[in-house]
Amino acid sequence: MKNTIGSHVTLTIFGESHGPSIGVVLDGLCPGLPIETERIEHLLSLRRPQGKLSTARREPDPVQIQSGVFNAHTTGTPLCLLIPNEDTHSADYSQLKDKPRPGHADYTARAKYHGFSDYRGGGHFSGRLTAPLVAAGAIAMTALSRKGITLGTHVLKCAGIADRPFHDYAEDIQSLDQKSFAVLDEDAAAQMRSAISSAAEEGDSVGGVLQTAVIGLPAGLGEPWFDSLESLLSHAMFSIPAVKGIEFGDGFALAECKGSQANDAFRFEQGRVVTATNHNGGVNGGISNGMPLVFQTAIKPTPSIYLPQDTVDFSTGENTVLEIGGRHDPAIVHRAAVVQTALTAFVLMDVVAGRWGTDVFLQEGPL
Amino acid sequence: MKNTIGSHVTLTIFGESHGPSIGVVLDGLCPGLPIETERIEHLLSLRRPQGKLSTARREPDPVQIQSGVFNAHTTGTPLCLLIPNEDTHSADYSQLKDKPRPGHADYTARAKYHGFSDYRGGGHFSGRLTAPLVAAGAIAMTALSRKGITLGTHVLKCAGIADRPFHDYAEDIQSLDQKSFAVLDEDAAAQMRSAISSAAEEGDSVGGVLQTAVIGLPAGLGEPWFDSLESLLSHAMFSIPAVKGIEFGDGFALAECKGSQANDAFRFEQGRVVTATNHNGGVNGGISNGMPLVFQTAIKPTPSIYLPQDTVDFSTGENTVLEIGGRHDPAIVHRAAVVQTALTAFVLMDVVAGRWGTDVFLQEGPL
Amino acid sequence: MKNTIGSHVTLTIFGESHGPSIGVVLDGLCPGLPIETERIEHLLSLRRPQGKLSTARREPDPVQIQSGVFNAHTTGTPLCLLIPNEDTHSADYSQLKDKPRPGHADYTARAKYHGFSDYRGGGHFSGRLTAPLVAAGAIAMTALSRKGITLGTHVLKCAGIADRPFHDYAEDIQSLDQKSFAVLDEDAAAQMRSAISSAAEEGDSVGGVLQTAVIGLPAGLGEPWFDSLESLLSHAMFSIPAVKGIEFGDGFALAECKGSQANDAFRFEQGRVVTATNHNGGVNGGISNGMPLVFQTAIKPTPSIYLPQDTVDFSTGENTVLEIGGRHDPAIVHRAAVVQTALTAFVLMDVVAGRWGTDVFLQEGPL
Amino acid sequence: MKNTIGSHVTLTIFGESHGPSIGVVLDGLCPGLPIETERIEHLLSLRRPQGKLSTARREPDPVQIQSGVFNAHTTGTPLCLLIPNEDTHSADYSQLKDKPRPGHADYTARAKYHGFSDYRGGGHFSGRLTAPLVAAGAIAMTALSRKGITLGTHVLKCAGIADRPFHDYAEDIQSLDQKSFAVLDEDAAAQMRSAISSAAEEGDSVGGVLQTAVIGLPAGLGEPWFDSLESLLSHAMFSIPAVKGIEFGDGFALAECKGSQANDAFRFEQGRVVTATNHNGGVNGGISNGMPLVFQTAIKPTPSIYLPQDTVDFSTGENTVLEIGGRHDPAIVHRAAVVQTALTAFVLMDVVAGRWGTDVFLQEGPL
Repeated sequence: MKNTIGSHVTLTIFGESHGPSIGVVLDGLCPGLPIETERIEHLLSLRRPQGKLSTARREPDPVQIQSGVFNAHTTGTPLCLLIPNEDTHSADYSQLKDKPRPGHADYTARAKYHGFSDYRGGGHFSGRLTAPLVAAGAIAMTALSRKGITLGTHVLKCAGIADRPFHDYAEDIQSLDQKSFAVLDEDAAAQMRSAISSAAEEGDSVGGVLQTAVIGLPAGLGEPWFDSLESLLSHAMFSIPAVKGIEFGDGFALAECKGSQANDAFRFEQGRVVTATNHNGGVNGGISNGMPLVFQTAIKPTPSIYLPQDTVDFSTGENTVLEIGGRHDPAIVHRAAVVQTALTAFVLMDVVAGRWGTDVFLQEGPL
Repeated sequence: MKNTIGSHVTLTIFGESHGPSIGVVLDGLCPGLPIETERIEHLLSLRRPQGKLSTARREPDPVQIQSGVFNAHTTGTPLCLLIPNEDTHSADYSQLKDKPRPGHADYTARAKYHGFSDYRGGGHFSGRLTAPLVAAGAIAMTALSRKGITLGTHVLKCAGIADRPFHDYAEDIQSLDQKSFAVLDEDAAAQMRSAISSAAEEGDSVGGVLQTAVIGLPAGLGEPWFDSLESLLSHAMFSIPAVKGIEFGDGFALAECKGSQANDAFRFEQGRVVTATNHNGGVNGGISNGMPLVFQTAIKPTPSIYLPQDTVDFSTGENTVLEIGGRHDPAIVHRAAVVQTALTAFVLMDVVAGRWGTDVFLQEGPL
Repeated sequence: MKNTIGSHVTLTIFGESHGPSIGVVLDGLCPGLPIETERIEHLLSLRRPQGKLSTARREPDPVQIQSGVFNAHTTGTPLCLLIPNEDTHSADYSQLKDKPRPGHADYTARAKYHGFSDYRGGGHFSGRLTAPLVAAGAIAMTALSRKGITLGTHVLKCAGIADRPFHDYAEDIQSLDQKSFAVLDEDAAAQMRSAISSAAEEGDSVGGVLQTAVIGLPAGLGEPWFDSLESLLSHAMFSIPAVKGIEFGDGFALAECKGSQANDAFRFEQGRVVTATNHNGGVNGGISNGMPLVFQTAIKPTPSIYLPQDTVDFSTGENTVLEIGGRHDPAIVHRAAVVQTALTAFVLMDVVAGRWGTDVFLQEGPL
Repeated sequence: MKNTIGSHVTLTIFGESHGPSIGVVLDGLCPGLPIETERIEHLLSLRRPQGKLSTARREPDPVQIQSGVFNAHTTGTPLCLLIPNEDTHSADYSQLKDKPRPGHADYTARAKYHGFSDYRGGGHFSGRLTAPLVAAGAIAMTALSRKGITLGTHVLKCAGIADRPFHDYAEDIQSLDQKSFAVLDEDAAAQMRSAISSAAEEGDSVGGVLQTAVIGLPAGLGEPWFDSLESLLSHAMFSIPAVKGIEFGDGFALAECKGSQANDAFRFEQGRVVTATNHNGGVNGGISNGMPLVFQTAIKPTPSIYLPQDTVDFSTGENTVLEIGGRHDPAIVHRAAVVQTALTAFVLMDVVAGRWGTDVFLQEGPL
């Protein structure tokens, strides 16, 4: 499926950092979904570069819907949305043609595409392509919220500084929706900002861990053996540039536990089945159990740094040292938070549409 | 795709723990692959329960090929292989009908399938279904080895005890192929066995971390955005029961690094591009870079334990305490190693077939 | 997708004419569907060779369900059904290894599979593989009938003799369900039988046209642009061996009409939209309009004939003359009728499941 | 897959007749294909409305490539091409909101999309969307021609007038590439033009039959059972608006033949296997046999006619009579010829890419 994701609703991504435009096509959307332009713009604003913590590239990201919307509602036919590229400094990238940046896709793209790929600004691999993903995720979030499903992502760790965990999921999710720096604890946020700035000053970069929580998911979603919720979500999350790991619930910590510690006991609570703990992150056997879905991803430090780095030069066939100019993010973990939320929303919309049919989102109310 | 995985070569799994048989259908296989029955049997023997470390269920697992093989070679048409179920003690599971085991799929299967699923022995969710996956993986390993690609998995950690990392990949991979307890360091192996036995005596269970390495993969494999190597492999690995996390290269540890530490410098070495380090596990931008592909998974402790556990009883609508009889594994991490190898082999065979066409494995020699 | 069909419910076919068994795996079935063994056996009996009109091969076709059924209902997990091969006379086919039969897949299979395919009895291309398709279709017909959708196929033409068209769809569909020679007009049936016998005596074969009608389909099924009902059904029907054409409604005759003759006027009838005529076969713009779905397929004469035929001999590299022994059908059009019904039922079950979700068939009653 | 077609190379279509733009995304293209802008423009000119034989809507169709092309070659990443909508007279269509045109998708779209679809100009179902398909096909034709595969389509019949059949395939295919009215025999062409004009004067419309031939295809393409060449091509062709039937080789005429007449004898010819006749249209058992691939489609008369027609009025709930204004084609069969060629080229490019891998088109020369 290459640049397409989804089984019932599909999302196809296209574009290069320095081409005319980037965008996505969403197919299989429920007809009649209101297109909340402000919601799309708001989510895009959360992803946008922020002052000194980010690249200096301005990305106003005006979303241009080409199809699939009529009278401000989805029609049910493919929705194509474009974001034109602007403020491109292609000249900044001319040396990348032959000198691949360590940690980036420059070399692997060259190998894969036999040298025909657009290397400017990372081309098709640019993090910039997450902008249309966020726009698409905004539509998915509209759909999910009609069925009582909400979600959010925070920076659980950055540069070694830890945020507090989720306390009240509903409240925390709501607060994250308004935060351009998605950290629950304000002190932790301040320390992280400071650590990012320090790294920027050194010409270096930092990474972190993102944590996403989803509430309102009914039990019974996901497919054994190969389309478990964990499989679908991990498949999607590894599309976010810089993600190098994912874990559900207590994840790698579970590997250190005994079964008696890791198992979440079932209990009836007001006639509903719940679990007393949530070490498994709301997923048993790959299928949702009705508890909050919780997972973490590892975001590696941005590979674009100003420090000189060893690399090869294909024009000479010799080893060389690369010093990158251009405009870079000393951290992308905070900008990636909304991308992770958006992609998660898309995956869950697809799963819900598979279970109850495309039109399930026409009516508001629980599943 | 539910119970099917793969784009160019597909694998469809079927069966229940206590039904007539379990099996897989492989479609899109290269014609002319030798079917090495002994190799299949050998890999299955590595997965088989081992003495006191495992369930007492005997699983001779005779593989019965129904189709797709003629004159001991694949024909290129769908290959169906069956493993009949034997030695089933269905009565052991009667209480599971209404009392879901914590940490298992009993409750989520009930929710998903409206109470129609076969609950005996975990039904379709049973770890037993990994047996046909291993058989399928053996065929994939035959295909890959014709192109110089080999792979292996070891228990990197179990019950808090660590194995040594890979030293010489080729040699370690070869040695793992002969180990029924896939640990590189023999001292660590002995300690792990002892820890598993202790947990068994307590009626409890332990988990661990598996590490897989693949060598011989050329640069340029994987598809940007949604079918990256990391996406495809994580999608597959979360199908292995008990996997709760996956990370590539240094994974979550990268989240704590600076960019200058995480980036792998490119170097020419005998005219070939290599990286000086391999923190990214052989993958840049989701695409193989020609270095060893390395990843780890978190395996939670087996949820079936003999200790009493809190759960619900659907027949009474009340909370209850469950004591499980039956036969269980105090750890499955060592048995899961070959499953992880097998599934990885399948995914990579599929990726190679997509790039060079199904028939690429007809000829031996590098890609 | 190769040997798999379906988007929401998938059917994967496997097996060779002279291998251990043939079968299918159905995935994505609604849980809770009753498995009506007699219904499956009855449909298979309609496909079975009939006296002098068919091959002498006995095909008792005992269906062995391996998975996906528990307490006589579908579980929702993959249902694998096997039909063991018996009464195989493999020796009859030895000359086919090198002398491809005209009109058959012998040569194209050899080209595609590099000589590794099982040539005995047509191998994977054998019409025998339609038996598991019929069994699968029986399950689909159970599902559809719960939502008021019924269907049937008759031999509209055979050897130049025409059956009467459908009169009362519901009644005709019901009567076809009991006919082992699926012709509505008994006089036409007698003439067709006689023509088939004559062809058999000449060592030759005849073809025909099959017509299928489906009633109870609601308006709005099918997807522009590429998964129209016509696209999905034609894709499936060309899988039936010997089908060389398909047309919907008046089909090729529409090419000779004016627009004023071809258009079906819309009318309100008891508050429901109907069309005054049905030249378009219940499909407008690729989507069902609520009228009976009607289509015809062209079935070429069975290519296996006893008359000598020119062909090549790969063992000598020379042209040669082939005289086929073995057991052949002088016509398969009448046996193909139930196969066409079965595959149509599968496609429609899949389309309905896509629109309303897999579980839509749990409840009886209209869509 | 809804609005996506293809397995290895995928094409996703989007847009509405009166929205901002229409377009396609092609994914999985071989990198390094030259983008021949003139070739794209030339093919689009063959599809464009022609004087009195067509709608008066001007469609200059400037193709705007958004992505996937760099230095005038494909990059291998998704290629999105847009065609902006211009010269839209939306007011012409206001009555269609509630009065569905007979023979069109107006009513079925309303049923499918719960009234949210864009009804202006047929919306997403408009024949206008075939323009981006033609542009995509031009790229596929470039790819195929690098491997010696060429193809063309002529109007075999229109308004009862027959064109001559293909004589010399290579020559005829070449000549069709230059014909804006794709008829091989000039006399037949003149008669057809005249018949179309007559129908237009009556306010009526006519249909016809298109015949496509492909040469240079090697033997062995297509997948048994569900992705046969015939399945894939019919699936695609029924996407062309107005196609109501398809047949391969002699098609429905084969249903009237004896096996001894229908079978194509194999012969060695200069060391190559050929068939003495080509009744099966180059396909045996669903797989190409190396002979010219030949098929016909039935194109119904354009449903938009000026004559008054019976229909329903949803705003009143009463039957009514519709008189359509706007601009319509009295025949589209001649405009559809290049669409059929383009879609066929796309399907074949996909099949070739599946067999030999995406990069097969990098090098010129036979497969």
